[in-house]
Amino acid sequence: MSDTHTLSLDDAWSLSVRILESNGFSPDHARAIARTIWQGQRDECHSHGLYRLLVCTHTLKTGKVSANAVPELTDAAPGLVRVDARGAYSLLAYDTGRPVLIEKARKQGIAALAINHCYHFSALWPEVEAIAAEGLVALAMTPSHSWVAPHGGTKGVFGTNPLAFAWPRPEGNPFVFDFATSAAARGEIELHRRAGKAIPEGWAVDSDGQTTTDAEAAMKGAMLTFGGHKGSALSAMIELMAGPLIGDFLSLESQAYDAGAGATPYHGELILAIDPKIFMGADHAVHSQRAEALFDAVLGQGARLPSQRRYEARARSEASGTVTIPQALYDDLQALISEDE
Amino acid sequence: MSDTHTLSLDDAWSLSVRILESNGFSPDHARAIARTIWQGQRDECHSHGLYRLLVCTHTLKTGKVSANAVPELTDAAPGLVRVDARGAYSLLAYDTGRPVLIEKARKQGIAALAINHCYHFSALWPEVEAIAAEGLVALAMTPSHSWVAPHGGTKGVFGTNPLAFAWPRPEGNPFVFDFATSAAARGEIELHRRAGKAIPEGWAVDSDGQTTTDAEAAMKGAMLTFGGHKGSALSAMIELMAGPLIGDFLSLESQAYDAGAGATPYHGELILAIDPKIFMGADHAVHSQRAEALFDAVLGQGARLPSQRRYEARARSEASGTVTIPQALYDDLQALISEDE
Repeated sequence: MSDTHTLSLDDAWSLSVRILESNGFSPDHARAIARTIWQGQRDECHSHGLYRLLVCTHTLKTGKVSANAVPELTDAAPGLVRVDARGAYSLLAYDTGRPVLIEKARKQGIAALAINHCYHFSALWPEVEAIAAEGLVALAMTPSHSWVAPHGGTKGVFGTNPLAFAWPRPEGNPFVFDFATSAAARGEIELHRRAGKAIPEGWAVDSDGQTTTDAEAAMKGAMLTFGGHKGSALSAMIELMAGPLIGDFLSLESQAYDAGAGATPYHGELILAIDPKIFMGADHAVHSQRAEALFDAVLGQGARLPSQRRYEARARSEASGTVTIPQALYDDLQALISEDE
Repeated sequence: MSDTHTLSLDDAWSLSVRILESNGFSPDHARAIARTIWQGQRDECHSHGLYRLLVCTHTLKTGKVSANAVPELTDAAPGLVRVDARGAYSLLAYDTGRPVLIEKARKQGIAALAINHCYHFSALWPEVEAIAAEGLVALAMTPSHSWVAPHGGTKGVFGTNPLAFAWPRPEGNPFVFDFATSAAARGEIELHRRAGKAIPEGWAVDSDGQTTTDAEAAMKGAMLTFGGHKGSALSAMIELMAGPLIGDFLSLESQAYDAGAGATPYHGELILAIDPKIFMGADHAVHSQRAEALFDAVLGQGARLPSQRRYEARARSEASGTVTIPQALYDDLQALISEDE
């Protein structure tokens, strides 16, 4: 028997929607959630791929997340649209707010979308990429749970606090990055734990504040930020901007609210969008082309662009029309359906 | 004879203005430049303190920078004010644009100030701090010269690309950080070179792309970003947003424009301002207070906040009413006056 299971892209989509609906999500939520999970699997971001269906349905069973809340949109200011997710996952709230964000950015030059009161598990790159597809520059950030110690500390304060950025290019895929400000993503440590593998040094400390390579001990201790005091400062910025600035939880508050249930973090998300046609001015086509010189200079010396590996994976998945996951994960996913249907 | 020279804060101010004016800067430019240099010295940021007077006057003598251009302000969009520095230093353009940026942020919720066609040598924290003093959140970034290799590369593409952030606090100094996305600031390597000291590993590669601890070789090779591929991605973002996005130079273009003169980088600067009263909504006082829990959690475990050392230096300088610089630097500064008066 093979260790892996290969599904067509269509089957990966149907399976995702079916698992989400059969576990109680409304059709709108199921599709919004399935879309980001399906995109993650297609791009071989395994920690944000089909594996996340396990986490989503687990969190739903804790009774914390709403399976059907309709997001509530408020036009808060000329440069700000706010969407209250009302205790559901963030994705449908994002889909609700995105068109208004884009409209505002095109009118004001720069605008923000604040998503409030959402459970959040998803990668941010699909969200900034969708905004870049409309020709806008986008920047997104969220807190999470307080798993990450500040530089010089030993106890969790910050979330893994991802920062994602997208820059539309005249041709082809946009320039996109999406990184956790922790040294590693929480999902990566969890995958190491599930696989019984050691984690590299510098990712985490144990519950006594000592460096550890044990994934289990790391999950109980505190993760570290990337890049020393600079990564720590950036993480604090994300905490503030995607937390209190939008009237929502810090990672510390998300963790407290969870009260040991082990559910997905509950907090807000901030997305900024900028219209390059306004910022670049009349010569925007020229300036957009000038940006290409930056990418050429990186690629020309044999270095890679941040999104390159993911786009290569996407091209592979689209060419074969399939995705491949561990057989054990596939069995776990099947169990999620037979339990509930 | 002492190795150091102590000046009163007032004398440091007068000396700065006198050097700048006697070397040809208009009174407005001299005061805008002197203010940031004086603030740097007061906070014991030696690489952005009185030492920079040497660089400013050197750059002026290369004939590249304008000593008296009047900045030109354009109200480009509801969320964007643009100030053309017209080939002068950035500081007077910043002073010209700041009140309009603040007014726009208070009206739109979020707004941007794009400074174009400026020579830039100054730390960004005084600029974001001045915006936080008005109760707004601020984020600033600039490219520089293409001294820094991308992750996985060996040749300079990015600038040292600083990112600065300020968050107003209900009491006392704002939360501020300002860091180069290079592993070290260019000025730090230059100070090591002047002092004949080795630099730490990880700061730079030599002109053959090999790791070096020789400051001289580092100045001729390429600097490295902080935090591996994440720092490199962040540096690319700054390059794009404070470069082509505002219709201005990449660090590569600034370097080419310099044509070996060794002058201060010539490019643009992007500053974003956000009004927390709009973003936080009706309960802004409550949310502002909730942000304090983050700072308490960092300080409570014995870790430090990014701006803490600088604020301590400021308190010392203000208590003594003095700043202290190397005697050799003081002599160099005196020579700048006797040459020209």
